[in-house]
Amino acid sequence: MFKVIFNDGESKIIPFEDEECRNSFRHTASHILAQAVLRLFPNVKLGIGPAIENGFYYDFDTPQPFTNDDLIKIEAEMKKIVKEGLSLEYFILGKDEALELFKDEPYKIELINELSEKGETASFFKQGEFVDLCAGPHLARVSDVKAIKLLSATGAYWRGSEKNKMLCRIYGTAFPKANMLEEHLTALEEAKKRDHNKLGRELELFTTAEDVGQGLPILMPKGAKIVQLLQRWVEDEEERRGYQLTKTPSFAKSDLYKVSGHWEKYKDGMFCMGDEEKDREVFAFRPMTCPYQFQIYLNRSRSYRDLPIRYNETATLFRKESSGEMHGLIRLRQFTLADGHIICTPEQVEKEFIDAIELVVYMLKTLGLYEDVYYRFSKWDENDRSKYIGEPEQWESTQNLMRDILDKTGLNYYEADGEAAFYGPKLDMQMKNVYGKEDTLFTVQIDFQLAQRFGMMYVDTDGEKKYPYIIHRSSIGCYERTLALLIEKYAGAFPLWLAPVQVAVLPIADRHNDFCNEIADELQKIGIRVEIDSRSEKIGYKIREAQLMKIPYMLVIGDNEVEKRELAVRSRKTGESVTVSLDEFKAALREEVDSKAL
Amino acid sequence: MFKVIFNDGESKIIPFEDEECRNSFRHTASHILAQAVLRLFPNVKLGIGPAIENGFYYDFDTPQPFTNDDLIKIEAEMKKIVKEGLSLEYFILGKDEALELFKDEPYKIELINELSEKGETASFFKQGEFVDLCAGPHLARVSDVKAIKLLSATGAYWRGSEKNKMLCRIYGTAFPKANMLEEHLTALEEAKKRDHNKLGRELELFTTAEDVGQGLPILMPKGAKIVQLLQRWVEDEEERRGYQLTKTPSFAKSDLYKVSGHWEKYKDGMFCMGDEEKDREVFAFRPMTCPYQFQIYLNRSRSYRDLPIRYNETATLFRKESSGEMHGLIRLRQFTLADGHIICTPEQVEKEFIDAIELVVYMLKTLGLYEDVYYRFSKWDENDRSKYIGEPEQWESTQNLMRDILDKTGLNYYEADGEAAFYGPKLDMQMKNVYGKEDTLFTVQIDFQLAQRFGMMYVDTDGEKKYPYIIHRSSIGCYERTLALLIEKYAGAFPLWLAPVQVAVLPIADRHNDFCNEIADELQKIGIRVEIDSRSEKIGYKIREAQLMKIPYMLVIGDNEVEKRELAVRSRKTGESVTVSLDEFKAALREEVDSKAL
Repeated sequence: MFKVIFNDGESKIIPFEDEECRNSFRHTASHILAQAVLRLFPNVKLGIGPAIENGFYYDFDTPQPFTNDDLIKIEAEMKKIVKEGLSLEYFILGKDEALELFKDEPYKIELINELSEKGETASFFKQGEFVDLCAGPHLARVSDVKAIKLLSATGAYWRGSEKNKMLCRIYGTAFPKANMLEEHLTALEEAKKRDHNKLGRELELFTTAEDVGQGLPILMPKGAKIVQLLQRWVEDEEERRGYQLTKTPSFAKSDLYKVSGHWEKYKDGMFCMGDEEKDREVFAFRPMTCPYQFQIYLNRSRSYRDLPIRYNETATLFRKESSGEMHGLIRLRQFTLADGHIICTPEQVEKEFIDAIELVVYMLKTLGLYEDVYYRFSKWDENDRSKYIGEPEQWESTQNLMRDILDKTGLNYYEADGEAAFYGPKLDMQMKNVYGKEDTLFTVQIDFQLAQRFGMMYVDTDGEKKYPYIIHRSSIGCYERTLALLIEKYAGAFPLWLAPVQVAVLPIADRHNDFCNEIADELQKIGIRVEIDSRSEKIGYKIREAQLMKIPYMLVIGDNEVEKRELAVRSRKTGESVTVSLDEFKAALREEVDSKAL
Repeated sequence: MFKVIFNDGESKIIPFEDEECRNSFRHTASHILAQAVLRLFPNVKLGIGPAIENGFYYDFDTPQPFTNDDLIKIEAEMKKIVKEGLSLEYFILGKDEALELFKDEPYKIELINELSEKGETASFFKQGEFVDLCAGPHLARVSDVKAIKLLSATGAYWRGSEKNKMLCRIYGTAFPKANMLEEHLTALEEAKKRDHNKLGRELELFTTAEDVGQGLPILMPKGAKIVQLLQRWVEDEEERRGYQLTKTPSFAKSDLYKVSGHWEKYKDGMFCMGDEEKDREVFAFRPMTCPYQFQIYLNRSRSYRDLPIRYNETATLFRKESSGEMHGLIRLRQFTLADGHIICTPEQVEKEFIDAIELVVYMLKTLGLYEDVYYRFSKWDENDRSKYIGEPEQWESTQNLMRDILDKTGLNYYEADGEAAFYGPKLDMQMKNVYGKEDTLFTVQIDFQLAQRFGMMYVDTDGEKKYPYIIHRSSIGCYERTLALLIEKYAGAFPLWLAPVQVAVLPIADRHNDFCNEIADELQKIGIRVEIDSRSEKIGYKIREAQLMKIPYMLVIGDNEVEKRELAVRSRKTGESVTVSLDEFKAALREEVDSKAL
């Protein structure tokens, strides 16, 4: 339990398990960091230093970036400060006093001026000689921050904008007890080993190139093979469920986005070409597939007999992410979505919505990812209507419809305001990555507006023309992201059906090559992906390499195997070797692949 | 045989079979057209009027576009002119006299001024009261143009530029004899029926949308299905031949294209985003896959043991075509190429090049398109070196290498100067479309330059670092274009394995639906694409619709079939019906699909 001071000066005692307490705790640690830096490097100027998930950071304007040696010194100074027994003190100041107090801190001056423009009061927290402009809350005592670890230093633009100066950001974490810190650091090490952005490169699944640019991963043959396998599986499964595949363009004239509303509500998120003032045609690369698939619906008149129509597409999408936001295979400027739209009557929407969720669940379960998913019902923010199109009553009725359906399914979900798409509410399937960061993987939306905007109608049983509902949905989500999830889930040791190389054939000496080639041919004939390592390396070295590449099965072929025409099969999963005939091995492989065993 | 006057005033007698004669013939027809238009519409201003493949056109600046009635009148006037027995007269004039002669023709004035700026002499052809600025050649007598037909009127920008005024273009054709014209028009009618841009829409294979834009076709479910089938076949066949699939981004920073040379030699053909002066990053959408796949090669060091490396990719490419050039599924702003690059040693280049051609031939034969293909060996133009990178000696030696290999293969090819890629010579596989227009479908290139530009090396047997050769190749070419070829080749009646719907099941009455559903289920289980037409329409109507959609097999199910549990199978190809069991039908379908029978 810790005493926390809030930004009205009041204090409360709350446990560390409470998020508010953890944030106050780490926020205080960030102040200790700034205090230590100023003691050791008096010329440094202060940026800002918030608590973040599992830790904190502070940004500094420093003539030279901090080295690892600097971090060690700073951490030592922080520990000294913790032992000094300082208390935190909350106070507020008028603008002039505040500016006087921070006359040598240009970034703080910028923030104070902004607060004043917004008519807000500048509040401060002080510990010993150190004062920071800060809305809190904070711990009441510095000495509570018993266990501190600085993790890294990196560059970060002031306020996240590339137009501003690059500052030096120090990341750290802090816990009430040394053993808690220790546990966290161990978990972090484990996570790093699974981090797709590291492991995916080591396994030659993907790479990036400076000249190509950020957020544009290059899938190498092994990564592309996994995506190809997933794509075929998804397209086939969706076809079985009555979807019709489409292939629509990656970009269009701005005219299309003016109809959909993207031009008004989403323009900054799109890569655009051309200038509306000067050019005859202005283009934008698509962030979503919907307006394109709608053109197919509009190709001829439709009746209630044609509905539901389910369109799917393996769609390349483009989103203008700023450089700070891009990461590995997760936040990208270009990605490939298993996208789709179901156009249906009001009577069909419940079944179609539930079927769409069921498909996602089926795919997640098949991939072994389902247990980590939870549901968010994302609604609009009625206090920020400018972000959305449509009338409040429409939003209310569609949200109620969706809640009713969700309740019928018995799914366990939480509600979140302000997370809807600009045209309708959605059900998001959420997951945390290896570092505990939450992300939306899949989304199913009910849209009551775009059919009207695009003039999509159907002739109902009564002969009247009506607007259908549209369900926007994915099944496996974004292929690049799914690849990232699989890497992290399996630490690169993929289920057999997805392993880019399924069997490594390792001849002990050159005289065993012929038999190895024969085995490889036989396996390839039944669609197994095989690699023969016929390099003149020691067998131990070959085995270690195959292990590092996490190949599911290894065949070590020597005199004994050639003579008896037997295989010594070593399984990555069990670590054990068994001796089997080629036919037995083939049958076992096919069974494991066809059943998509995990 | 016709007497033709050339633009030095000399004349020659040549046969109509000679291209030069045909062009002079049609060019003279275009003058007759202009003469007739001026007689009927004296206020019209003249643009230009050349001969084109199989005909001619003339552009006119007219206050009102020509109607079909106008065309009939104009054609009648042309026939009158032909009978007037006029001769053609060639002469030249100085700039001032020429400008005086055409003082009322602003477009001719523009052309005369340009000729004068380039120091060229203005030449003219005169027939009766009609004179045109023209470089010829022309027929000596108008009366030779016995058979004339005006085909259509359409808009066309002056000199093809969107910045200029839209003129009215009249297309026509002309032959020495009425029966030749008749034959041509019949062939044209036949071609129109097969025209993929018409038939492909009727069969619901693709559509376009005004709001999306030109050159951006939208593949509807049936078209997308064919492309999906082709793509899987190509990727699988290439994998069998040792290719490794990649999946690389659609765009990159300009930095990448600066290394490849595209920024210098191909910038105007690319869709670019951003301004080099103002923006931190400038991007271009890729017109080719090469620089992207090279990044994978560069991911680690390579030795001669690793070569050849064969990368393939189903690559979306983007080219900035101007509006006049776009057409159906052929000339596009975005298309999908079965692209690939083979990186190999000098010793391997011959075999790899021949294998690449062999793969194309295999695919064309499988699709039934091979008989229509011929080969062009495309070389650089040594008189226009600014279009290319690299030294003359390198071009000579690579072109010689390529000619040697081609001669060994025994392929029948012709040589064309100035058709090479900017980085190396290529072998183009050419085909004519239904209207006789030639186009390049596939291309295999030998590149001796990009490895150096990208610093791609391999360690050779002697331990030295060397630059590999790179073969740029496709196998099936561009999927959209292949779809167009297939539509035109088969007039939409695709081979079974590619037919979007393979079997139509047609119940005669509602009471037959259950058996129809049962049949459909059984067929779908073995991967056959089935549609049941259970609408309350007459069976004759259902059969006609299935015929129009060119579905390979129709099952008409009535009382007799239900009772005996037999199928009456009607084949589109033979037009005949046979009665078989469901098992027999299933076996026959699988055999026909698996063998990719034509």
